[in-house]
Amino acid sequence: MRIALIGVGMIGGSLLAAWRQAGLVTTATGYDIDGSAAAQALDRGLIDRSADSVAQAVRDAELVVVATPVGSMREVFAQAAAALAPAALLTDVGSTKGGVIADARAALGAAFSRYVPAHPIAGKELPGVKHADARLFSGRRIVLTPVAETSSDALAKLEDLFARTGAQVQRMEADEHDRVFAAVSHLPHLLSFALVAAIGAETGGERRLGYGGAGFRDFTRIAAASPVMWRDICLANREALGAELRRYRVLLERLQQAVDEGDAATLQRTFELAAQLRRQWADPADAR
Amino acid sequence: MRIALIGVGMIGGSLLAAWRQAGLVTTATGYDIDGSAAAQALDRGLIDRSADSVAQAVRDAELVVVATPVGSMREVFAQAAAALAPAALLTDVGSTKGGVIADARAALGAAFSRYVPAHPIAGKELPGVKHADARLFSGRRIVLTPVAETSSDALAKLEDLFARTGAQVQRMEADEHDRVFAAVSHLPHLLSFALVAAIGAETGGERRLGYGGAGFRDFTRIAAASPVMWRDICLANREALGAELRRYRVLLERLQQAVDEGDAATLQRTFELAAQLRRQWADPADAR
Repeated sequence: MRIALIGVGMIGGSLLAAWRQAGLVTTATGYDIDGSAAAQALDRGLIDRSADSVAQAVRDAELVVVATPVGSMREVFAQAAAALAPAALLTDVGSTKGGVIADARAALGAAFSRYVPAHPIAGKELPGVKHADARLFSGRRIVLTPVAETSSDALAKLEDLFARTGAQVQRMEADEHDRVFAAVSHLPHLLSFALVAAIGAETGGERRLGYGGAGFRDFTRIAAASPVMWRDICLANREALGAELRRYRVLLERLQQAVDEGDAATLQRTFELAAQLRRQWADPADAR
Repeated sequence: MRIALIGVGMIGGSLLAAWRQAGLVTTATGYDIDGSAAAQALDRGLIDRSADSVAQAVRDAELVVVATPVGSMREVFAQAAAALAPAALLTDVGSTKGGVIADARAALGAAFSRYVPAHPIAGKELPGVKHADARLFSGRRIVLTPVAETSSDALAKLEDLFARTGAQVQRMEADEHDRVFAAVSHLPHLLSFALVAAIGAETGGERRLGYGGAGFRDFTRIAAASPVMWRDICLANREALGAELRRYRVLLERLQQAVDEGDAATLQRTFELAAQLRRQWADPADAR
């Protein structure tokens, strides 16, 4: 299959690596606004050619994978639309779906029916194609959020392609997707960024960070993620994220009161609910 | 050395395991309000005897290690005080120091000068002596917060003993300790508990948790920690924790506004500050 990758980063690079391992790639062309990213991907043999523009990259491609920050996707879709081959399939790997789908609908015209919105639930805090990993999706989930116009043929093809990465592929409504991931992904990222920023902004904050132990390391691992990517995600999903953050802040206000007043019962009840749920929780990837 | 361990859990058990490996233990006696904890420690050979009371455990001990939740320490100190051998040393492993020191001062009488407050910056979210590990402290820090009355002899002995676990031992003022750990440990725990509790309290919350990926796993690992232990820590350090939580909530209010209004610059600035600091940050244990 001839693949065009727009946005040559960790996720897009990992997809190509997985598909190459599965023998699915005839040629892969990459385009990134940062030329050094494409150069690294060439060096690693993930792409065969680096293109000078989105239009050049997608010409002749049978599948176009858009793996830029979600804030850039509308522009990418618009540039791709003019140069797409008639039967080309498209997908994206954005962490928000409602906004990206609206962007695609506005930009793609007739090709919109061959676009299958996707979100691989996999990542690591290390950005860049140099961290691409063919095993990244193994045992993970990839969520597809097709809409009424999505061609069932295109959907079936992408389901098969994504399954070949070793992931479990499943479908979900875009709205529900965005609400769920506001809670379990976007809000935790915002909270983790905020904690490190809050400590860093204090006098002596950098020295304080030095005392963080294993708990701090775990809690703040996601604060090393790409600021631009997460800015875009927070904005693209601002309605659902805003609602989750508001709900969370109400709980924090209650916990502040409990701390200030020495209300042991409220703290214990909240911590017990959380500990019980978290101990039951199993990462889908734990099974691999 | 004859050691009495009051509170036979993961941290206390790990200390005994490390000291046994270093050849420092003649006999170890354990006491826990949960008899099965002491039984497990006997089975694993971490303690030689299980005592029926704090007083019985500390009689004849050269070193008493208090490793209960911090909310129980005042009572433990009081019960130990009556039965202590004249030259016995004491230490604790509590995550807060100001309150524990006040409890020790009130309860220990003349023995207070032989008490060395300590906080091993090591842990895992799995509670219980069955998770005790002789290597837990290796490469980690153990912070001692002696006060004016602390005997320099007792301090030097405990510094040496803790160093024999493989940890880096350092001194700090108790006040400063409590402010620093409110920021880098107690607040993250409260925030992590709160996130899981908030999602769990929503309709369909348990199903939503199932979509959490690697970021969620990292952020919420500490929400599986002991609710009673963390309730006690939050209450024992309520002044410093309350202040940190208040400061954090001000930042969250600003980020809520940025999300609601689509203010990209504020989000990006905050995320960039955090990502830069977090990428520089190195866990002292990473070096091991």
